[in-house]
Amino acid sequence: MSVFDDKKWLTEVFADSGSVFGLAITRKLDEVQSPFQKIAMYETSHFGNLMVIDDVIMLSSRDNFLYHEMLSHPVLFTHPNPKNVVIIGGGDCGTLREVLKHPGVETVTQIDIDEQVTRMAEKYFPELCASNNDPRATLQFADGIKFMREAPTESVDVIIVDSTDPIGPGEGLFNRAFYASCLQALRAGGILVQQSESPLIHMPLLSAMRQAMSDAGFAALQTLNFPQMVYPSGWWTCTLARKGAAFNGFREADAQQAPFATEYYNVDIHKAASALPNFMRKALEAS
Amino acid sequence: MSVFDDKKWLTEVFADSGSVFGLAITRKLDEVQSPFQKIAMYETSHFGNLMVIDDVIMLSSRDNFLYHEMLSHPVLFTHPNPKNVVIIGGGDCGTLREVLKHPGVETVTQIDIDEQVTRMAEKYFPELCASNNDPRATLQFADGIKFMREAPTESVDVIIVDSTDPIGPGEGLFNRAFYASCLQALRAGGILVQQSESPLIHMPLLSAMRQAMSDAGFAALQTLNFPQMVYPSGWWTCTLARKGAAFNGFREADAQQAPFATEYYNVDIHKAASALPNFMRKALEAS
Repeated sequence: MSVFDDKKWLTEVFADSGSVFGLAITRKLDEVQSPFQKIAMYETSHFGNLMVIDDVIMLSSRDNFLYHEMLSHPVLFTHPNPKNVVIIGGGDCGTLREVLKHPGVETVTQIDIDEQVTRMAEKYFPELCASNNDPRATLQFADGIKFMREAPTESVDVIIVDSTDPIGPGEGLFNRAFYASCLQALRAGGILVQQSESPLIHMPLLSAMRQAMSDAGFAALQTLNFPQMVYPSGWWTCTLARKGAAFNGFREADAQQAPFATEYYNVDIHKAASALPNFMRKALEAS
Repeated sequence: MSVFDDKKWLTEVFADSGSVFGLAITRKLDEVQSPFQKIAMYETSHFGNLMVIDDVIMLSSRDNFLYHEMLSHPVLFTHPNPKNVVIIGGGDCGTLREVLKHPGVETVTQIDIDEQVTRMAEKYFPELCASNNDPRATLQFADGIKFMREAPTESVDVIIVDSTDPIGPGEGLFNRAFYASCLQALRAGGILVQQSESPLIHMPLLSAMRQAMSDAGFAALQTLNFPQMVYPSGWWTCTLARKGAAFNGFREADAQQAPFATEYYNVDIHKAASALPNFMRKALEAS
């Protein structure tokens, strides 16, 4: 059996898959106990800075581009003309930065419950916070569930739920009541997108999420696959739910001519992400 | 920092990415020191049985389908009429099983240097060895590099290199001399496919492999992406190299009507796998 050497490691045990993942750390940078959670920052040997919340790995400098790009660009190029965007969670501001790359977006309101996440990101992921002062952006530190419940009817084009796992503060973001609030706040044809865990490990959760979205009244669902090394299994998804309309491709020409750079996303990747392996098809049909 | 609990873990440190991956093990099943390497078998809590060679995780019962299907079906459905197939390595026999699912395949010769790998697989992955007695299959335990060097000219349609990493016994399978032997053994339009590591971690190695394949005289290359939880980063690839012809899609109708079941592979997945993220495109253009 391999053993760790005398380097320091930040490890996370994934109890529901009997697996462990870790990164070699060169030093601990910071730690703060907010009213909601414990936020710790580390410097790693190969992955830049690392944010860990309540001992769960959130993001690293090196691989966050996968998640942030896939949570932003597919939904924004699928909507015909997204002007008003809401981000629930997303306190590290990486999703916000990607959304603001779209020139047609007029307002982005980000609601993270924990201001300390953003303060840490400003300090240790300044590149992700580069667009925080964009005049189109509003950062609120408040309860996203309440925000969506009170949002004016048909006022939003795209809602991005960039949250932690469905335990702790993120729990209320994965149920029918929350999705009903989102549906009500979306304009016709509007789209909700949410991170939806790993197909290899969390298929029952993914199925349940999709069921709750359907139960809340969303007309069509689309799950997209992408790699994400620092999350359980390294294989992650997000799920799009559309109000009142089926999915019918995306604005391919606009994506092809996007006036901004991406590291992962492109037209081919967007198309590829929606391909579902046989075992996922079977699980989703059965649910 | 998270700490391990008192469960037992089989962990593998990936020095070149400063990361660690591990699976919870319930007991050690076996260990043998062959003339070539140390082969250990474990029972895990969530991933079935696990084979570890020289402390490197090779495969688990639960997730090997990803790798074995992607190393077999894309290449076999890309070749117009594959009859004679050679597998270099592949001693666990999982790739062999997938190849033999194709009714058009007339002969499969598997050459693994280490008979003990196959003996262990027969015992602990019997499902992967279910087709070992197929009359079309020949299992040889010999040096794959020598085998390819001595293979009759233009005698093979598809060569699948299902090897360990390019260190130790697998090293000689990743260079121009080996690829030149493969090219010589392939008939016109024949295809070599080889596992080609992780884009996130091993991009220079992937670029070098592709360069060596081109230098050896292959006419066209295609790298396919797929998830593989137990390998570094959870994101893996294989690369197809074709003799004397460009790639021009695959036998989509045949794949659609395949007379066998797969857990991961299907027509959509095949198409999706060839989509390259921007950072890979850039790295491959630069190399």
